[in-house]
Amino acid sequence: MIPNKYRQCVVASRPEQSVTLENFRLETVAMPDLVDGDVLVQTGSVMVNPPAVVALNRGVAKQPPVPVDSVMWGQGVGTVVASKNESFSVGDRVVGPLGWSEYRVFTGAELAQLRQNHLPAEVPATLALHVLGASGPTAYLGLIEHGKPKLGDTVLVSAAAGTVGSLVCQLALAAGCTVVGIMGSDEKGEWLSSLGVQHVINYKREDISARIAEVCPNGVDVYFDNVGGSTLEAALSNLAMHARVVLCGATSQYTDASPFKGPSNYFDLVHNEATMRGFHIFHYMEQIPAVIGRLVPLLKAGKLQFKEDVLEGIEHAPAALLRVMDGKNFGTQLVKMSATS
Amino acid sequence: MIPNKYRQCVVASRPEQSVTLENFRLETVAMPDLVDGDVLVQTGSVMVNPPAVVALNRGVAKQPPVPVDSVMWGQGVGTVVASKNESFSVGDRVVGPLGWSEYRVFTGAELAQLRQNHLPAEVPATLALHVLGASGPTAYLGLIEHGKPKLGDTVLVSAAAGTVGSLVCQLALAAGCTVVGIMGSDEKGEWLSSLGVQHVINYKREDISARIAEVCPNGVDVYFDNVGGSTLEAALSNLAMHARVVLCGATSQYTDASPFKGPSNYFDLVHNEATMRGFHIFHYMEQIPAVIGRLVPLLKAGKLQFKEDVLEGIEHAPAALLRVMDGKNFGTQLVKMSATS
Repeated sequence: MIPNKYRQCVVASRPEQSVTLENFRLETVAMPDLVDGDVLVQTGSVMVNPPAVVALNRGVAKQPPVPVDSVMWGQGVGTVVASKNESFSVGDRVVGPLGWSEYRVFTGAELAQLRQNHLPAEVPATLALHVLGASGPTAYLGLIEHGKPKLGDTVLVSAAAGTVGSLVCQLALAAGCTVVGIMGSDEKGEWLSSLGVQHVINYKREDISARIAEVCPNGVDVYFDNVGGSTLEAALSNLAMHARVVLCGATSQYTDASPFKGPSNYFDLVHNEATMRGFHIFHYMEQIPAVIGRLVPLLKAGKLQFKEDVLEGIEHAPAALLRVMDGKNFGTQLVKMSATS
Repeated sequence: MIPNKYRQCVVASRPEQSVTLENFRLETVAMPDLVDGDVLVQTGSVMVNPPAVVALNRGVAKQPPVPVDSVMWGQGVGTVVASKNESFSVGDRVVGPLGWSEYRVFTGAELAQLRQNHLPAEVPATLALHVLGASGPTAYLGLIEHGKPKLGDTVLVSAAAGTVGSLVCQLALAAGCTVVGIMGSDEKGEWLSSLGVQHVINYKREDISARIAEVCPNGVDVYFDNVGGSTLEAALSNLAMHARVVLCGATSQYTDASPFKGPSNYFDLVHNEATMRGFHIFHYMEQIPAVIGRLVPLLKAGKLQFKEDVLEGIEHAPAALLRVMDGKNFGTQLVKMSATS
């Protein structure tokens, strides 16, 4: 049942400005033979998110950028279809850096990156990529441990309809806060409102800073930043005293390899005795199981809604990335490569 | 003994780029008559520091900029020479916003800004402007409460030979830290070394980031920022994991009214799980007496050395400010206007 050829999508060139379809190349390659210790995974779905552009331009988690002619980086879920490794059996559901590839052989040191997908069978396997993967714990630890929201605080979230942002909004609501979400379409705003988010700001047609000032008359107590740039500046201009700014992402700055734009009003931190804290889930891997233990009851109680935006077929992976960078996806962007897992 | 005229230095024009001598005008004015409640203070010395430029361009502590044709802002020490107010007697030593003026009448609501100078008579009155005024508590609270230095930490300080910076260096040494000071002349560096600072970096002739990397092989645990700009960026590029950045000043950005340059590598806070915290002594006024109670024993033990750089005569006040902005002062810049206090 294992084919003798499969398709993969490699980096054809590094982006000069924004990412384009031409930065990738789809190719068909021969299925390799396995050697002792190897595991062959068939990809079910791969998540395509803004860090993919970081992987292209700068490298994620202190890794070098993905080399040209190598398979594009991406976390995915799949199923073991052949194994010469006693830790993995055919049929095992797994999660790891499957990349933009219909199959991947994990060999040698790479095997350490492949994990069993322990989600119960009744839960869709793809939740291991977001709510019950890294995004849920990112939202929880970033908001709760670093943002330290108190009952009655006003919590501002950018990319609020995104995978992490929408979870931050719902966790803040569950913690008794007033939540203000910034997003790029009225459709996303309506979804956030349906989740209970009290105020939404469409950055594509509203003055962000003026609207924050309007809906947060006492200032912003916690700002969870996923985007950086002018949105970060608008938030810093509207902080409450002793506010906490949690830096999680800077998607507005990922578009090319040029330096980030630093917030010109960073000194508002001084005027407001405020704290800006960087945070990356990479440094909290050992805490993830305990956090997931807190998220599952919320998920079962319907307090953590989520959306998936699925394109089918590896050939659509580059287009999926462009959708994400343009903010056109609505929900976690997945590319489904097979019906497995 | 009270003259019928005195000299004051007013704002003649707002700086267009850098401050110049022409932004000020010295004038001789008639001594006003006092009404009930008024207090007349003869200025001893006024401190001239970088926030003076903020007062000119943007306004300090949420006040508007000093109006054109008004007396230039500055904290000073002086002596009450006439009083129609039962809270103040002739001969009282006082501290307050005396401004660039040989005399000042405090009247009405302004009186709330005038305080008795409670320093013991054997201590020079001018210490109420720096070590035992706002600068000492700024250094203490900024470093100890927000920087949270631990024994063995590496503490980096910019404007390290300045009033606040030199106190931060000495407090960090007293707390058992390795201290790295950044300053703009070798003479200042030699002074810092004589205080026990382990490494000094002359930003005018050395590559700041490369030198930080060289002398802080394990990264910077605490960075106390007085200057902003490219020095802040150099520090952010060399943080240890879980570093604390304390924002106290941004003198490199005070020179004109244009927006600050935000640190383009602020996302290094994310890579290092680091915190950047704003801090202004204005918000901690009620804690100052207790902190001074901790500083006095250190001062008496010789662990808090300081320097004063004194120009004599109000006519030199504008030149004093230019010295400060060019980093040519060595020690707290004072302008002595009379032998009083």
